[in-house]
Amino acid sequence: MANQEDKFKKVVSHAKEYGFVFQSSEIYDGLSAVYDYAQNGVELKKNIREYWWKAMVQTHENIVGLDAAIFMHPTTWKASGHIDAFNDPLIDNKDSKKRYRADVLIEDYVGKLDTKIEKEVKKAAKRFGDAFNKEEFLATNARVIGYKEKGEAILKRMGKSLENEDLADVKALIEELEIACPLSGSKNWTDVKQFNLMFGTKLGASADTAMDLYLRPETAQGIFVNFSNVQKTGRMKIPFGIAQTGKAFRNEIVARQFIFRMREFEQMEMQFFVRPGTQKEWYEKWKETRLKWHLSLGMGKDNYRFHDHEKLAHYADAAADIEFKFPFGFKELEGIHSRTDFDLSSHEKYSGKKLQYFDPEINKHYIPYVVETSIGLDRMFLAVFSNSLQEEELENGTTRTVLKLPSVLAPTKAAILPLVKKDGLPEIARKIVEDLKWDFNVAYDEKDAVGRRYRRQDAVGTPFCITVDHDTLNDDSVTIRYRDTMEQKRVKIKNLRSIIKEEIEIKNWLMKM
Amino acid sequence: MANQEDKFKKVVSHAKEYGFVFQSSEIYDGLSAVYDYAQNGVELKKNIREYWWKAMVQTHENIVGLDAAIFMHPTTWKASGHIDAFNDPLIDNKDSKKRYRADVLIEDYVGKLDTKIEKEVKKAAKRFGDAFNKEEFLATNARVIGYKEKGEAILKRMGKSLENEDLADVKALIEELEIACPLSGSKNWTDVKQFNLMFGTKLGASADTAMDLYLRPETAQGIFVNFSNVQKTGRMKIPFGIAQTGKAFRNEIVARQFIFRMREFEQMEMQFFVRPGTQKEWYEKWKETRLKWHLSLGMGKDNYRFHDHEKLAHYADAAADIEFKFPFGFKELEGIHSRTDFDLSSHEKYSGKKLQYFDPEINKHYIPYVVETSIGLDRMFLAVFSNSLQEEELENGTTRTVLKLPSVLAPTKAAILPLVKKDGLPEIARKIVEDLKWDFNVAYDEKDAVGRRYRRQDAVGTPFCITVDHDTLNDDSVTIRYRDTMEQKRVKIKNLRSIIKEEIEIKNWLMKM
Repeated sequence: MANQEDKFKKVVSHAKEYGFVFQSSEIYDGLSAVYDYAQNGVELKKNIREYWWKAMVQTHENIVGLDAAIFMHPTTWKASGHIDAFNDPLIDNKDSKKRYRADVLIEDYVGKLDTKIEKEVKKAAKRFGDAFNKEEFLATNARVIGYKEKGEAILKRMGKSLENEDLADVKALIEELEIACPLSGSKNWTDVKQFNLMFGTKLGASADTAMDLYLRPETAQGIFVNFSNVQKTGRMKIPFGIAQTGKAFRNEIVARQFIFRMREFEQMEMQFFVRPGTQKEWYEKWKETRLKWHLSLGMGKDNYRFHDHEKLAHYADAAADIEFKFPFGFKELEGIHSRTDFDLSSHEKYSGKKLQYFDPEINKHYIPYVVETSIGLDRMFLAVFSNSLQEEELENGTTRTVLKLPSVLAPTKAAILPLVKKDGLPEIARKIVEDLKWDFNVAYDEKDAVGRRYRRQDAVGTPFCITVDHDTLNDDSVTIRYRDTMEQKRVKIKNLRSIIKEEIEIKNWLMKM
Repeated sequence: MANQEDKFKKVVSHAKEYGFVFQSSEIYDGLSAVYDYAQNGVELKKNIREYWWKAMVQTHENIVGLDAAIFMHPTTWKASGHIDAFNDPLIDNKDSKKRYRADVLIEDYVGKLDTKIEKEVKKAAKRFGDAFNKEEFLATNARVIGYKEKGEAILKRMGKSLENEDLADVKALIEELEIACPLSGSKNWTDVKQFNLMFGTKLGASADTAMDLYLRPETAQGIFVNFSNVQKTGRMKIPFGIAQTGKAFRNEIVARQFIFRMREFEQMEMQFFVRPGTQKEWYEKWKETRLKWHLSLGMGKDNYRFHDHEKLAHYADAAADIEFKFPFGFKELEGIHSRTDFDLSSHEKYSGKKLQYFDPEINKHYIPYVVETSIGLDRMFLAVFSNSLQEEELENGTTRTVLKLPSVLAPTKAAILPLVKKDGLPEIARKIVEDLKWDFNVAYDEKDAVGRRYRRQDAVGTPFCITVDHDTLNDDSVTIRYRDTMEQKRVKIKNLRSIIKEEIEIKNWLMKM
């Protein structure tokens, strides 16, 4: 656990130090749970987005793209259920004036019970090294089971109360458990109230005509309201999909874990419209296809697992997460949801416009069912980044920090390094840069010893270092050094482009799927 | 003029009919001045963004990218001057309760004087066909000069009053000119008030701790607040640039002309940091470089012109627009601004953090000067789209509608068409699709006569149609038909990829710069 925390801290500090992720508005002491992608981060993020787009849109004849605006007509969010049901239960401490998520307070309480269990187990494990003591064993056992049962009962009661909107009971639970404000230590709580997570703003200047707008909390609705226009103008036949990437916003009270849960984030979503009754089959197919996409990056099969939802959202008849092993444990990376015809039906009802499809194969009109694949681009960034960051012991006893990004996603593909800053080597290196820069991102670096330059490129994940040395003057060849193995090979300058392209082209990675 | 309006209407309706641009939330009767990019529009927009990014970031060793969040610390907007000075002067009509931009009301009034001048000139031109009448000629002349002088005097007075924040005089001007509300006809006006154009929202749930946030009205400030972090972690040496693309938001009262002026729009901005005293030289260089970028697309040299600003914004010591000939006349497409050290100095002052650069060449610390290039992605989209939309008379007397997009920007690069839906031709066509789809966007179409399919591809701007016919079964060749010339050539299937790539690769277009 301590090890995990250390690892996570390293991820965050490496991301800043090497120009991947900065806190937003850092010079103004930051804006909580908002982050900026820096010079290397922006390229990694772009490459992930493109890797998704190519797999989902470009190579699927029956999936097209969309780029709907962040602003949408407010009735959209009435129809989608977000105005009424996209809430967090909040409670204020009257003494500290601090506001908390009621469910998080209770979960933290249960978390402390878990810590107690761990302590008991550790103590017991220690004892087993000594003489076995039946009395103590039974007592420990009883305590552990007691904590466990208590925790489960609390979570069950809370889940039920939240489901039934019985907020008075959530407050009662907090009082019964004697949960105190972490800041003031006071147990003087207000009632629990629902707080909507959408950011609101106003369109138009006149008080009379101003319209309440929301920043979209998900990109999916932009696809649903455009369903009919895309289907008709694109002459799409079911089954077909509409995909989009874009920003979404949630006014999270407790946002944490770096870029894992942010107030402003980017989604990559695809809504696949199918004939009613076939949704189960497509749901299974998309679960499989999306897992394959993740695996194509070669980040280790054991780092992924499915988590099938038992409790389903109001719009879903099946749902699963693809979880990834983040530095803080397995967490949701992508969701695959069978959303039924909930959204299109609801928009039909609220808009009064028909959102039906005529299926010529069965000669029928119907509202299509929808299977959604939804992945957080920032989470995917964190998964790739944290999994790639490694410290390696080298043969000479030193360690190197290396970012083993899948080369297809690396911000810079190759660094061109003249061995020394004279004898015409920089000129040759620059010529190589000029020649390759049109095809992919390259860097030029002539400062410091070549070993230090290798380390700098390792730290930002550049898969290839190309060194120009004195032999180059005679043999038109350079040394190519591979980031992961540190292996070095002599190759002709004229072959560089094709050698590198072969390794970094999206096509070659996706075709492995 | 009528012709221009017709052309513009065609642009808007073609954009909708062929899946380029839809009005946002159309099923809810739309959201004013907000648009969604549809299945073809999203690809065109992506391609423009990539064409800019490749030219500005990938191929410039001293320019790096950034992707700052839309949310920023609110003090950012105090420092940038947007909280105090990013206003429109508004006036309400007390009877209709309708709100107007005071400056637009006055400009519309002057516009009507211009219409009167045109009428006089037309009448005079007609007269010259008849006998020349000295008296009438002099009288016409006097009226025209009168209108002209009056218009100029009004605009001058308004400009001065706005500059001096003398809003009472702006109101007085409206009253003196007896301008009536276009809706109610009433001249019963409120005072003129400044209205801030930023969209506001609130971060955090508690009334005590909620923070006023703004949706950024420009992307530039995200670059300025990150200047120091990028410079240090990227080891950048002046002169260097930071570039980013992203959404910005302005609560425009009068938003019009389709996607030309929207409330939510996307910018592509680059801030170039230089040694003080060298800004003029860099300003000239960037004006030239940016114009070359536009010209590389081959949309006609005569469609561009520079407009040097006489009146400069508070932060600038030089500014020019690259104007493009839109269907509604020459209008700003891109701005090049010499922003001095205004922004960095102001952020230094408000944040208390040093935003200086140590220049090893002259051994001095200083706040860099900035030259900015700023282009609206949506405007660029409109420029490309409207300029490409053409109606051609064909030899057989019919017309065709063709979207002559620069092929590097076209949403779909090639459509693969089996001549008939049998004899194994669809299978061959599908094999070509499978083979090419990894490299660029391709479409497959087997419906209707091949002539109709050509027209459909013409209308969405696909540069190449590949037809598979019965001869293909024997000669492994297909017919490639060029969109612009309608010329057809017989080529080997195995050469298709390289023939098409040669024509569409960004590299080949940019290297013409």
